[in-house]
Amino acid sequence: MSKERVAIIEVGPRDGLQNEPITVPTEVKLAFIKHLVDAGLKEIEATSFVSPKQIPQLADADALWPQLPVGPAYSALVANEKGLERALAVGVKRIAVFTAASSPFTERNIGMTIDESLVRFRSIISQFRANGGQFVRGYISTAFECPYAGKIEPKSVIRVASELFSMGVDEISLGDTIGTAVPVETKALLRDITGQFHPSKIACHFHDTNGTAIANVSESLNFGIRRFDSSAAGLGGCPYAPGAGGNLASDDLVYFLERSGFETGVNQSALAQASLQLLSVLEKSVAAHAQLSALSRVSKTQS
Amino acid sequence: MSKERVAIIEVGPRDGLQNEPITVPTEVKLAFIKHLVDAGLKEIEATSFVSPKQIPQLADADALWPQLPVGPAYSALVANEKGLERALAVGVKRIAVFTAASSPFTERNIGMTIDESLVRFRSIISQFRANGGQFVRGYISTAFECPYAGKIEPKSVIRVASELFSMGVDEISLGDTIGTAVPVETKALLRDITGQFHPSKIACHFHDTNGTAIANVSESLNFGIRRFDSSAAGLGGCPYAPGAGGNLASDDLVYFLERSGFETGVNQSALAQASLQLLSVLEKSVAAHAQLSALSRVSKTQS
Repeated sequence: MSKERVAIIEVGPRDGLQNEPITVPTEVKLAFIKHLVDAGLKEIEATSFVSPKQIPQLADADALWPQLPVGPAYSALVANEKGLERALAVGVKRIAVFTAASSPFTERNIGMTIDESLVRFRSIISQFRANGGQFVRGYISTAFECPYAGKIEPKSVIRVASELFSMGVDEISLGDTIGTAVPVETKALLRDITGQFHPSKIACHFHDTNGTAIANVSESLNFGIRRFDSSAAGLGGCPYAPGAGGNLASDDLVYFLERSGFETGVNQSALAQASLQLLSVLEKSVAAHAQLSALSRVSKTQS
Repeated sequence: MSKERVAIIEVGPRDGLQNEPITVPTEVKLAFIKHLVDAGLKEIEATSFVSPKQIPQLADADALWPQLPVGPAYSALVANEKGLERALAVGVKRIAVFTAASSPFTERNIGMTIDESLVRFRSIISQFRANGGQFVRGYISTAFECPYAGKIEPKSVIRVASELFSMGVDEISLGDTIGTAVPVETKALLRDITGQFHPSKIACHFHDTNGTAIANVSESLNFGIRRFDSSAAGLGGCPYAPGAGGNLASDDLVYFLERSGFETGVNQSALAQASLQLLSVLEKSVAAHAQLSALSRVSKTQS
């Protein structure tokens, strides 16, 4: 019997890079993305149309976008109407908007309450659709815990999800932003939220800060979730040291899913190699568990 | 309601150190163990009575044992009758013996087939009991996959477990030696083996080589397993680079269990700090996910 497909939404080029202090040249980003495409990734969040002052690393979004290698479904984060204009100008068809389940978090992160962000999104999404926009993802950050407000109740997440779906978002992505969630919490949230929205419209975005990301993915599969965000080599959200997981590494996610009997379409060795050049530019060492395993297998094969 | 206790068997001083190329002085090991005890660990595999030529790092077992801080239940690995004599001479009451579910593995690792190792253990355990020995653990390595023989069927593990229990072993520890297992495999093995032996007599020893250890622990809890092996800071079995998990880090295990509503009795900050001096001697950087989180919380509290 053929295997069931699980979709991986690769966020390395956007979420992975956005906080890196070393500016990555556009051509290095393009080479990185080309390698990701060659490795088999089919959905890639390529960049963000936000203020270049706020995120200098992604200031080249307008230049990068038209040069993206053909094949995958690319998306871009859009923060406001100015960003939407820029995105539309280069033909972006899939956007993501960013809010959270905790207002103290959105206030510090995007300078608005949740409700203020939702008002803005309604307008952005409406304009995007009117200009041929095809797909909108709504990030709900701090879906389990907020660094300022503590643990988040599922009902807070469901309220934001309802608002986002009501304004025509195609998919929500539930973020364990500080990587503290464990499967009992994932179970509690997904049981409630999949009771109201079909799991095909829900992606999960786990961070590996405390080593629990794969356990949470494993639990999510029990609720029919088949879409997961991850970042090649675990790039991004890694405030302390290499190896200290922020984003779940795509390498670990692919390993886990394939070994568990699902199909990802991603070649593990090619994925492991995709990040090497970029890691070198970022002056970082190899970090993902499965990336090290894959590279070790490659070097054994080659020797 | 009070929480359910889960036991952590700390193997850092033995399994964590045995392959480290830098020899750790006995007094540094003792300080490390003292910190582990202060952090709340109650079962510690402290050393191994094996040939000093084979494992020079643990050649000080006879000197170390009498100096261990009082409190925990200590155990030591014993490989043969000579090792048993040495262990009995310093008053060891809890031993571990080491075999596997794959003969190609035992042949390369301990120079015997599984059955030859079992014959040896029967004699060792009998002598140990006759000399006041109180507790015997039987390691079953490669319980999921062998690097030489490939995937291992649960029935192979159950056969070895039956033999070990029949010779009076108190507990078996199922090892995912190369860290490839995922929860569907854990489920398959534990469903079969807990059908024959009570889960209280089974410990699980997962490696985090591919980032799946916590997911496997999470699955094991569903089968009543309440005893897990781990190593402070993930020491041991880390052939490639710091951060590339071999042993599951006790730090990650404690974080996961406590957050999941279980009681471990281990203080996460104290545990994170316990390894720091040792890591410095080993010239290694901090590696465990939760250790980094805990140290970050400590430094925030202190600043």
